[in-house]
Amino acid sequence: MVKQAKNAISPTRDEDYPMWYQEVVKASEMAEKSPVRGCMVIKPWGYALWENIVSTMDGMFKDTGIKNAYFPLFIPLSYLEKEAEHVEGFAKECAVVTHHRLEAGEDGKLVPAGKLTEPLIVRPTSETIIGESMSRWTSSYRDLPILLNQWANVVRWEMRTRIFLRTSEFLWQEGHTAHATEAEARERTMMMLDVYTRFVEEYLAMPVVRGRKTASERFPGAVDTVCIEAMMQDKKALQAGTSHFLGQNFARSSDIRFQNADKKEEFAWTTSWGTSTRMIGGMIMTHADDDGVIMPPRVAPAHVVLLPIARKEEDQRKVMEYTRSLADALAVRTYHGSRIRVEIDDRDTGGARAWDWIKKGIPLRAEIGPRDMENDCVFLGRRDEAPGKKVSLPREDFINTIDTILDDIQNNLFNRALAFKRENTIEIDDTEEFKALFTAPDENSIHGGFVMAHWCGAAECEAKIKEDLSVTIRCIPFDSKTEQGRCICCGNASGRRVLFAKAY
Amino acid sequence: MVKQAKNAISPTRDEDYPMWYQEVVKASEMAEKSPVRGCMVIKPWGYALWENIVSTMDGMFKDTGIKNAYFPLFIPLSYLEKEAEHVEGFAKECAVVTHHRLEAGEDGKLVPAGKLTEPLIVRPTSETIIGESMSRWTSSYRDLPILLNQWANVVRWEMRTRIFLRTSEFLWQEGHTAHATEAEARERTMMMLDVYTRFVEEYLAMPVVRGRKTASERFPGAVDTVCIEAMMQDKKALQAGTSHFLGQNFARSSDIRFQNADKKEEFAWTTSWGTSTRMIGGMIMTHADDDGVIMPPRVAPAHVVLLPIARKEEDQRKVMEYTRSLADALAVRTYHGSRIRVEIDDRDTGGARAWDWIKKGIPLRAEIGPRDMENDCVFLGRRDEAPGKKVSLPREDFINTIDTILDDIQNNLFNRALAFKRENTIEIDDTEEFKALFTAPDENSIHGGFVMAHWCGAAECEAKIKEDLSVTIRCIPFDSKTEQGRCICCGNASGRRVLFAKAY
Ligand SMILES: [Zn+2]
Ligand SMILES: [Zn+2]
Repeated sequence: MVKQAKNAISPTRDEDYPMWYQEVVKASEMAEKSPVRGCMVIKPWGYALWENIVSTMDGMFKDTGIKNAYFPLFIPLSYLEKEAEHVEGFAKECAVVTHHRLEAGEDGKLVPAGKLTEPLIVRPTSETIIGESMSRWTSSYRDLPILLNQWANVVRWEMRTRIFLRTSEFLWQEGHTAHATEAEARERTMMMLDVYTRFVEEYLAMPVVRGRKTASERFPGAVDTVCIEAMMQDKKALQAGTSHFLGQNFARSSDIRFQNADKKEEFAWTTSWGTSTRMIGGMIMTHADDDGVIMPPRVAPAHVVLLPIARKEEDQRKVMEYTRSLADALAVRTYHGSRIRVEIDDRDTGGARAWDWIKKGIPLRAEIGPRDMENDCVFLGRRDEAPGKKVSLPREDFINTIDTILDDIQNNLFNRALAFKRENTIEIDDTEEFKALFTAPDENSIHGGFVMAHWCGAAECEAKIKEDLSVTIRCIPFDSKTEQGRCICCGNASGRRVLFAKAY
Repeated sequence: MVKQAKNAISPTRDEDYPMWYQEVVKASEMAEKSPVRGCMVIKPWGYALWENIVSTMDGMFKDTGIKNAYFPLFIPLSYLEKEAEHVEGFAKECAVVTHHRLEAGEDGKLVPAGKLTEPLIVRPTSETIIGESMSRWTSSYRDLPILLNQWANVVRWEMRTRIFLRTSEFLWQEGHTAHATEAEARERTMMMLDVYTRFVEEYLAMPVVRGRKTASERFPGAVDTVCIEAMMQDKKALQAGTSHFLGQNFARSSDIRFQNADKKEEFAWTTSWGTSTRMIGGMIMTHADDDGVIMPPRVAPAHVVLLPIARKEEDQRKVMEYTRSLADALAVRTYHGSRIRVEIDDRDTGGARAWDWIKKGIPLRAEIGPRDMENDCVFLGRRDEAPGKKVSLPREDFINTIDTILDDIQNNLFNRALAFKRENTIEIDDTEEFKALFTAPDENSIHGGFVMAHWCGAAECEAKIKEDLSVTIRCIPFDSKTEQGRCICCGNASGRRVLFAKAY
């Protein structure tokens, strides 16, 4: 490993993690804050990542029979009133449209005019309006299941925002299904969690803990909420996807009824499940290092950048020709069924050029100078290795093995994250030890982790820990074994460990 | 041709065109009105069409170097004030967000709270905010060109709405590019019009007239607006896409400056171009008949539906097996590089089943009964032919020629629309004849057409015709030849015919 004098990102993770995150995003040119409070501009490099996420997940959804649809941006105020629990959940902080016109005021400035009879809410979710549609579309068991998904923008007013992690407007998908039987709806709930798990682990290279939310962390109105939780490099948890079994609660409030095969009327059994651009924040905080973002190859906007190097003018044409022909040869190769995505960067910006791509997190950088060309080689750097570590590789080998190299990076990223998660997941039985782990020695230090500890099941204990330490039960992991123990809070009997952590 | 007793859609086009359109959309299950004023719910069959449109156009954009990005849903009020012309164009009718919270009022109802210091506008276009970003991103000629596109929802408050054609919220793409030279920006303006032309003609099977807008029909702030205009079956025009060369006007108002190679500061040259879900309305009104929608195969959500027919119980299993194996064989075949999209409909709804698919406009219906199976045949109906006209085709022939059959339908649709447009495009030199053509004999009758007539170039004549007849100059067609004549309005000299029509 070549020792670097300096990192591309300042501060480093250890120095100031939240500021490091901000700088990483900025340096990657993925997104930036917009002049509109709490909203972000997703720049081409970030949006291309989102497009890859969308197209992959969308294909997975469709493979399970899901169809996409689109529902209105606005929700009538009365819809939120219908669902008391919903209002508690979302409507407190949301964008309210009260007028439908602008007029020039006395000073020539524009003022809102055309007051609406009933204010409209910019959707914080489309749940209520999708429920209303399902109600109209369902009369017989033959109309079920209804298997819908929507890719859209939603708005939840946020006072303190962080790009990708918490913004007033974000992009997401929300799935909503209605079924004739409880068993089918429960199966769908788990099926979609499985899709999320597979996508997040295999594509974003983020290992997750799968489990069930406690009653207090459950989605409002849900009978059962299952989730995947990932560990960020500051050892906090980030929920990367949730799937809800809503029983008949949602059907009751939205009036989704059907006549069953015995001609009896029943409420449908429904599910909902969602993921958002927040996943991108999670991906960054899982893999990025002190030199910037690291894109997992399977979702990377581009797989490789070719960097022609020709200091002498007489070399330039030849090197560029060689570079273009290499790009053409790579672009017809595939990686997991997709074409290899190649960028050529022939800017004349010296050393800053390679660093730009390191900060963007492109998996591979291939330098091509006159000597490489003579040897029919490229000088290859991998983003999962130190910036200074580069190897010379014959052109033909590079072309023929690029998919293997990319898979090696993909696996390396996953395994690194898995090792980090394992190292920082511990069982604790002692209350003081538990408190100490979650108490910062100083403001900036990274502390905490995933703690598997016993919990008696009482909401009071859960609330006390949250109050005292800002630590929540992220989930009751599916794989946590039955085991006798004492609640980490009250000492009462417990039959199973649950996952405690601080969270985003 | 088998004579039909009755059409699936009532009223027919001839009886009541606007109502026919509404019924066609409803019967197709593509979209429906939502409980939110002026907004539509795009149902899976309609949204799948939109997805095909998006993915095709998006690929075409990217082939020309365009990259996608995403900008905030909200626009600060002050941004609209900056651009006086803009305000005239869009801001009059738009959704205004004035509050960011809901609180329970005295009667328990929710009331808006948390008044914003500055109201936000739900984007009617992202032009101003993209301009602001381009301004920040541009300092040197090396930063140019910037080639951006956004797929998003936009809102323009509409009092009278029609699904797909005019809704308060719609989905669209808006492209914005900035260039160092006028020539490059002008070239981009035409390049994108070419993309639109190719997409609309080759995929939506809608023949178009390409031309230039007159000054009064130009986009506010544009130096030149070029467009494609299509003819609907009521002989009205529908603008299917526009591309604008904005000169340096937009750069001036958004402050997009760059230092050129000679270190001098200049304003950039910009373009913008857009299409929307309105195209779907145009596609429907071009091809649909009195039995419902007709989907051009190249964008159809599905290419073929297999309809197993087994009246006797002992046949059911065998027929379904045969059907599934046929579906599998078809699904690995390709049509213009995409997999053949197959639906199986095994509902037990009798004759209504095939009619459902006719109304949805699927290109091919293949019935499979016990006798077809014995003969290893399918009984095939094409959506571009009468519903009763079906032919028996050997299974292998069907599998091997489905791409040819689909192309034949695609071409047939285009040629039919082209013939209709030609029949209804006439040259008129007599003012009375012009008036008569555009004056309805009675309320419901379909009249008018595309009229190529001389125009002196005066805005007054254009305005008078618009005022008197609701007829506008759709464009100055690129291919209208130089020819001496007299203005259809004032009789003054004219050197070229322009395209007059009523329009959506
Ligand atoms: Zn306890
Ligand atoms: Zn005139």
